[in-house]
Formats: sequence, structure tokens, C-alpha cells
Amino acid sequence: MAAQRIFNFSAGPAILPPEVFERAAAAVRELGGDGHAKGAPGIGLSLLEISHRSQDFGMIHDRAVELVHEVLGVPKTHQVLLLQGGATQQFAMVPMNFAAPGSTTAYVDTGAWSTKAIKESQAVAAGGGRGHETAVLASSKDTGYDHIPALPEHLPAKAATAYLHVTSNNTIFGTEYEAMPAVDLPLVVDASSNIGSRPMGLERATIGYAGAQKNLGPSGVTLVWLERSWLEREVPAGVPNILRYASHAAKGGLLNTPNTFGVLVLGLVLEWLRDKGGVAGMAERNQAKADALYTVLDNSDLFAPHVPKAHASSRSRMNVTWTLGGAAEDGREALTKRFLAEAGAAGFSGIKGHRSVGGCRASIYNAFPLEGVTALCEFMTEFERRA
Amino acid sequence: MAAQRIFNFSAGPAILPPEVFERAAAAVRELGGDGHAKGAPGIGLSLLEISHRSQDFGMIHDRAVELVHEVLGVPKTHQVLLLQGGATQQFAMVPMNFAAPGSTTAYVDTGAWSTKAIKESQAVAAGGGRGHETAVLASSKDTGYDHIPALPEHLPAKAATAYLHVTSNNTIFGTEYEAMPAVDLPLVVDASSNIGSRPMGLERATIGYAGAQKNLGPSGVTLVWLERSWLEREVPAGVPNILRYASHAAKGGLLNTPNTFGVLVLGLVLEWLRDKGGVAGMAERNQAKADALYTVLDNSDLFAPHVPKAHASSRSRMNVTWTLGGAAEDGREALTKRFLAEAGAAGFSGIKGHRSVGGCRASIYNAFPLEGVTALCEFMTEFERRA
Repeated sequence: MAAQRIFNFSAGPAILPPEVFERAAAAVRELGGDGHAKGAPGIGLSLLEISHRSQDFGMIHDRAVELVHEVLGVPKTHQVLLLQGGATQQFAMVPMNFAAPGSTTAYVDTGAWSTKAIKESQAVAAGGGRGHETAVLASSKDTGYDHIPALPEHLPAKAATAYLHVTSNNTIFGTEYEAMPAVDLPLVVDASSNIGSRPMGLERATIGYAGAQKNLGPSGVTLVWLERSWLEREVPAGVPNILRYASHAAKGGLLNTPNTFGVLVLGLVLEWLRDKGGVAGMAERNQAKADALYTVLDNSDLFAPHVPKAHASSRSRMNVTWTLGGAAEDGREALTKRFLAEAGAAGFSGIKGHRSVGGCRASIYNAFPLEGVTALCEFMTEFERRA
Repeated sequence: MAAQRIFNFSAGPAILPPEVFERAAAAVRELGGDGHAKGAPGIGLSLLEISHRSQDFGMIHDRAVELVHEVLGVPKTHQVLLLQGGATQQFAMVPMNFAAPGSTTAYVDTGAWSTKAIKESQAVAAGGGRGHETAVLASSKDTGYDHIPALPEHLPAKAATAYLHVTSNNTIFGTEYEAMPAVDLPLVVDASSNIGSRPMGLERATIGYAGAQKNLGPSGVTLVWLERSWLEREVPAGVPNILRYASHAAKGGLLNTPNTFGVLVLGLVLEWLRDKGGVAGMAERNQAKADALYTVLDNSDLFAPHVPKAHASSRSRMNVTWTLGGAAEDGREALTKRFLAEAGAAGFSGIKGHRSVGGCRASIYNAFPLEGVTALCEFMTEFERRA
């Protein structure tokens, strides 16, 4: 019996290109020469056993950084760092480094991830000698985070504002900024879950960061880019060396041993992305995938999109979220359960919504194939016909 | 022509067992069932693309933690965490969490790694509202860190001392504690470079940590174990959630997305270690390897061990360091260069000493084969004969 094809809708760590899995597995067995270039002969050692100070790893690291500039469009005005700790650690490092005492850090609240970032700014402010304010300028909490809220007409004064922080895509609720906000404040962007999916104006961010485990690579490596001029800023006392961006930058991103495997795979993913037409090519494919799913949702009496059509410009192209309605309210839960069970049995993996909100979610990152979306759309239509 | 056998003496990331490379590469292609148990059929997905909240990864994570207890001998009184950021981040997290204002953090200075840990304690103390003292109780700096210095007879009062921090093995100078110091102070141990190499009393540490990239796995995952009662301690204000041990422990070690690949490989290494007779079995093999090299050094007129025979109890079984003397002083550098070049050409990789001290270093971690040590000893003896 032929094995069933599994379509992996995991929200992250998430699907990567099969070619990347092959090249990464090969590097674990034996690293290829020239920074694991295609077709280069092996060096006789596994990637996992070579020093991060070796010439072989130096090539891998430098090429990954170069590809971040070239493929993702991060300008050379910005320092690129490949750190550890995930976006969650960046929630803390940004205010630790850049929230001067007396300043205000401003946030837009689009759900769980923004909320965590806001809380870390508040936690840092509670330290002695810190004492910045944390302001939430806009939130869509009252409507279940079903859209990206507009910024207020009058923004706080630039001189007193450390930065404005936004989450470019929310994986849990399935919302996404259509474009980076154009504001006259230093912008900090958590782009973890849609980076690399389309041209999105990363250069507007004074500081940007992204956990790699959606569109960029495996978990355990975090891409950070920040304006070089900000590396000169005075960091408040009490921040240890390892948590200062300037310390990492001063050592060319290799202040201490990085996640060498993660850095290699990030580079392989970016090479794949470049060869597939870059972020512009990806944008077309991602739009087609998202459109197909939203069309099913908008034409259904059973499935209800979490982000209504009225907020179509807030709809995520990466994470499509919906609930099952239609039937009597007390039947919804059972129906959702049946849908998830049948979808799982049919090879659609990871469709269950985030544990904090329930319902369903299809994460369709860069490497997710259109045919998987088409198959899911057909499955949903057929399920509704039978329901 | 048959490929030359390469012996990898890298100080870290370092050699791991070939079997682990095979199983790790297989998991990157397709994860096996039952947490990648030997012989289990594949799950149809790569390890890199599954959620850290999935049942499959849960098994991998829980088994790795269980193996830390079972194989390394960390008692169940301690919480095990598999974090990110390396030992370097622990240098900062330990004082951030546990250096109460008014207390003293005590350190033994055995070289570069202790020095970095001391500096981070001082950096944290500089924060407003912190203000602990950082005391260096003993140091071997004056003699080029050529031994493990004894603790002073009179230790500081327990009530005012947050902890005593030691580095159990110094990779750069090649020194190692023969046994964990027996003191009536809470002990913090950076065991990055000799953990798992022999029975070493890890249970004496109130807090222990180890970057995985020597004896435990790939870079990008950090093993931490700490007494559960310390998780109840009040952490000074200003420490963000992601940098609090208690927050990680409260989420069973999965506060945010971990380095899933690193956690898998750490588990595979510990399985291998268990199957090879555990830390007791490893101790015998490691002692034999170290003895062979120190015997060559002690009987040579050309090679001089960095740690003299008079300090034999301070000699590292993991990193053997030496310089080339014998010839006129102005010839040493050229001779060292020639030795390193010839050793490299003969397949001995990574023999060059750390960039901060020069000379030579053979790192012979758990997975390094005795035959590689024997080959190096023969090469050195032959080199001296010709020199």
C-alpha cells in the first residue's frame, strides 16, 4: 500500500522545502566544501562537529547574512545578527537595550504575541533605574483580535517615544498588516510569521526580528536586523553583555557559539527562496493559496472565517483561521471535533486552531504547496455537503 | 585513492558519535515514530517541520530530560531545562535571578570562561536597585591559569553569599576540577566542557549548566538543572519573563519554541552514552586517552604541557594543552607553525590552541576515539625525533 501523502499545516516549527531537508541531512552526515555549496565534495566532518570559528562555518555564516540582505531586502544600513532565544527573547532585549528611562515604548496589540511583548516591556520597566512607560496605542482585543487596528490620528511625540512595536502577522488569530505602518517613529517589527512571504518593507524597521521556524528555517535561530546607528546608543546600566546588540555586532554576530545547524539551514532556505523568484515570486504563490481558502470560507454556510470579509485587508496570507458554525450552538464543538478528526485521517496535519482559541487554522507558509491547499478546499467543500 | 581518515580534535562544537550523526540526519529527512526510537517507522514528516507542542516532539523532549536524570545523574530534586543562548547566557541569568541586593556572588577564576561569568555578575550589579557584590575568592591568573586554585580557608559567610560559581573544566588552558568543591555554600557549576565525561558529583550543584556542544550535542541548546526549591525564590524586579528560570519551569521547559533539533540530538547522545556504559564507562576511556597524551608530554624535551606535572590533579581529561619549546626562543613560533601544518596535513584537525593563548590543544571529548589519540602520540613522538 502506498503511504498516504501528508500535508503539513503546522503553525511552526513549520514546513520547509524538501530540497532543504535533503541538503540539511547531508550536512549532518558530512558537510560539503565551500560552505556546503551544491555539488562541492565533502570535508570529511559533520556540520555538527566543526568549530564555529572554523573557515568552513565562517563561510556558512557570512553567506547566510549576505542572503538576508540580498533575498529578504534588508538594507546594508542594518546589522544582521543570527541569535538564539526566539522572538520571545527579543520581546525583552528590545526594551532592555532601547527603552531609556523617562521614555515611552509604544505598542500595537494584535493578540497573544504583542501581549507578550508588551508585558516584557513592563517587566523591564519595573527594574530600578529604568522606569519607562509602556503605552498601547491601538488594540483589536474587544472584537477578538479579528482585524489589525488603525493607529490613532495623533501619535505620541517622537522625542519622548523610544519606538513603536508591531507584530506584522498574528499566527493565532490570522491577521496580518497589509503594509508596514508609515509613521514618523522608530519602528520595531516582529516579523516572525510572515517574513520572506512577500515584499513587505522590512527596510522601514529600525529593528526587526523573526524566529526562523516559519519561513526561514528550523527553531533555535532568530534573525535580527537593526540600524547600525542604533548600535552606538547608550544602553542602560545593568544589561549584561550577552543581551546587548552592540556586543553581538562588535563580534560580527559570533559573540558566543551560535546554533550552527540553524544558521546553515536558514542559509539553505534563503537560497531556495532566491531560486524560486525571491519574495516577489513567493508573494504570488502565497496570495493564490490564501485566496483559495478565503473563497471557500466566504462562500460557506458552515465555515466562518475568524477575520470577516469586511476586514479583508487584515487577513493573513500565512495563517487562515476559521470556526465551524451553521448547526445549533451546542453542536458546534462536536462538529469541529469531527471535522478535525476527519481532516487528520485524510492527511491534513496540524489543522487544529491554537490551544488558546480553538477552531481551525491552516498555516500555509512559503514551502506549503498549492496542491495541499486545493486538496483542503475540496475536502472542506465535500465535508460541508455531507454535514 | 582512499580518503584520508580525519581525527577531529575541535574544542567545540565537537565530535559526536557517528551513530548520532546518522540518526540525526535520518530525523531531518523523516522523523521516526515513538520519539524517533530505533527501528520505529517514519511519521511522514521531518523533525524540523513539526510543532514543539506536538505529541511527537513531546516524547523527544520528555525522553531527553529523563535521560539527563538517568544517565548524567542529575537528581530529581532538580528541575531540568533545555534552553538556548549557550553557557554565556547563563553567566547572566544566574546573577539576574539569584543575586539579591546586598548579597555577594562568589567566583573562582580559572580563566576566560570564569572571567566572562564574573563580568556578567558585575554588569547585572550595575543595574539600579541591584547592587550585589561580586567577589573572586581564588584565581590562578598569576601563573597563566596553569592549575585550579585552592579556595581560601575561610569562606565568606553563608547568609550573605548568594552562591559560589566554578567552571568545572577550562577548555582554553586545559584545567579541570578533580572533584566538585565541597563547601557549605550554594554551588553554581558551569560544566559545559566536561559534563558526561565521568561521575563528577553534578548533584552537588544547586544550579548547573552546560552548553551542549562538547559532550552532549550540537550547539544551540543549553542544559540547565537547578534545585526546585530555588524556583520559589523571589527574583529581583526588572528581570523579564523569558530570563526567569521559574517561568521556564512553570511551562515544563517549553515556555517558548526550543531548539527542537538540538533537543533531539542531545537525547540521541545521551542514549549512546547510556549504551556505552554511562559516565563510569566513559571515565575509563577518557582517562586512558588523557594519560596517553600527558605521558608523551611529560617525557618530551620538545613539547611542554601547559599544566605542569606538579599540578597533575588540575589536568583536564578533555582538553590537553601544550606548547613547543626546546629550540631557541626565536625558533618556537616557526616550529609551532610547522608542527600545526604537518599535523593538519596528516589528518589531525583542530589541534591549534585557542586564539587567545596560542600553542596546541587536543580536545578529546567522549566521542573522540582512542585510536586518534594513539595516532597523535605517535605523530608527536616522530615529529620530535625529526625536529
